[in-house]
Amino acid sequence: MTYSPGIARLPIQKIRDAAILEAFDELAVEEPLEIRLQYGPSGNRREQPISITMRTPGHDAELATGFLFTEGIIHHASAILRTETDRPNSILVVLGENIPLDLGRLQRHFYTSSSCGVCGKSSLEALRTVCPSPQPAAAWQLDADLIYSLPDRLLQQQQLFETTGGLHAAALFHQEGTFLSLREDIGRHNALDKLIGSALLEEKLPLSRHILLLSGRACFELIQKAAMAGIQIVAAVGAPSSLAVELAQEYDITLIGFLRDQRFNIYTGSGRIHIR
Amino acid sequence: MTYSPGIARLPIQKIRDAAILEAFDELAVEEPLEIRLQYGPSGNRREQPISITMRTPGHDAELATGFLFTEGIIHHASAILRTETDRPNSILVVLGENIPLDLGRLQRHFYTSSSCGVCGKSSLEALRTVCPSPQPAAAWQLDADLIYSLPDRLLQQQQLFETTGGLHAAALFHQEGTFLSLREDIGRHNALDKLIGSALLEEKLPLSRHILLLSGRACFELIQKAAMAGIQIVAAVGAPSSLAVELAQEYDITLIGFLRDQRFNIYTGSGRIHIR
Repeated sequence: MTYSPGIARLPIQKIRDAAILEAFDELAVEEPLEIRLQYGPSGNRREQPISITMRTPGHDAELATGFLFTEGIIHHASAILRTETDRPNSILVVLGENIPLDLGRLQRHFYTSSSCGVCGKSSLEALRTVCPSPQPAAAWQLDADLIYSLPDRLLQQQQLFETTGGLHAAALFHQEGTFLSLREDIGRHNALDKLIGSALLEEKLPLSRHILLLSGRACFELIQKAAMAGIQIVAAVGAPSSLAVELAQEYDITLIGFLRDQRFNIYTGSGRIHIR
Repeated sequence: MTYSPGIARLPIQKIRDAAILEAFDELAVEEPLEIRLQYGPSGNRREQPISITMRTPGHDAELATGFLFTEGIIHHASAILRTETDRPNSILVVLGENIPLDLGRLQRHFYTSSSCGVCGKSSLEALRTVCPSPQPAAAWQLDADLIYSLPDRLLQQQQLFETTGGLHAAALFHQEGTFLSLREDIGRHNALDKLIGSALLEEKLPLSRHILLLSGRACFELIQKAAMAGIQIVAAVGAPSSLAVELAQEYDITLIGFLRDQRFNIYTGSGRIHIR
């Protein structure tokens, strides 16, 4: 396989009817990323691996930052002194000396996340211990026309997906509809962690005047991460899950699903959507 | 929300152009399932939670069994005396007294799986410690025409997906093309664990004369689980990832992707496919 960032190119056989075409195909790269924490007071620094995720390489520092934030392990970008890619597929996050670290939470995190495909939390209850209370809803409304336009504008920005068909995207728009940023990854939670990590590093949180667009389905974990970042409007091209809807309701997040072909469904928070 | 097994029904607003239609929508149910192990010699029985996964309720015993098997924690169905759903969203798997349990592996498992969206393993190296060596390839071939027909036959069987649009499916066909079983879940790894767990409970492993059909993308974790079950042909409706292809190559698995509209791509193991 030939690799370029995020894409692997390899020879395949394309079959149609009785014909075999020797061709090249481009795949989304999937590789493990180990996240390790260095923490503790001077003279007693410790290092601990806290996570391995299968991700598409690129924006690893954002991914690690976003992950630590959306999992409730750090609360500000300033908690991180620096990140070091000191080994292949491993990133060391160096925390400040005075950053309190809830090792119990880390321990719980190991437990609750194991084998978990779509979620780093065991339940709504566990989330409540991490996630800030719902913020007072901002008094702003979004036009349906603006919402219709989001998927096309995402596609214009999505480069990897076009070629591989195998990546999830998370994109951020400002409330006026300005495109702000996009991250892609083989794991939808990673794409969102990268996006939120990038906003955190740019000191843009909370994202209370922003729209989060998801290229696929909306499951619990994605809404949980959006809530951590203070996002109040989430639009997904695919279907939401039952727990995603419950969580959106609880955190007063407007949740839109099946946003495609100039139509969408509103699952929660319809007050923020203006239909002309 | 009104729940029926696997489906939640709730009132939503459907928006199209300037029209608002009050309607009902059906969502895939997403709920946590805690898997706990009871193990150890008589007189010194212990209990330990080992995983929480967000899953669609239904076939929980199969899910737990399949998970324990594909993660290399048990090696035979007979290791399990019984399963008990003794609490809501929690299942207790009672192992036999003489079943050796590698607590180190469990510990590693906690670590390697945390936050991991698509994979329970840290790397190909970690997998090699769990997964049996590739079996000698069976000398059988599959007609392209049979492969073309699989997605339509899956759709005929997929009931939940039709209404929710939010579930992944994994289906098993015999080498002659007979449909054998189907499992659906909000997590693609859960759908496959349920399918493999069901086959394990029916003592059908290894599945070396079977075709595994995946409704979506094929990532590393799914190929790893297929390898554990001895599956030699995997066909995915969506794209494979780079690591999925590498793993399929290593375990001599035929990997087909983008199986739709009477065409498909062969990524590995083309020798098993017969093009008329």
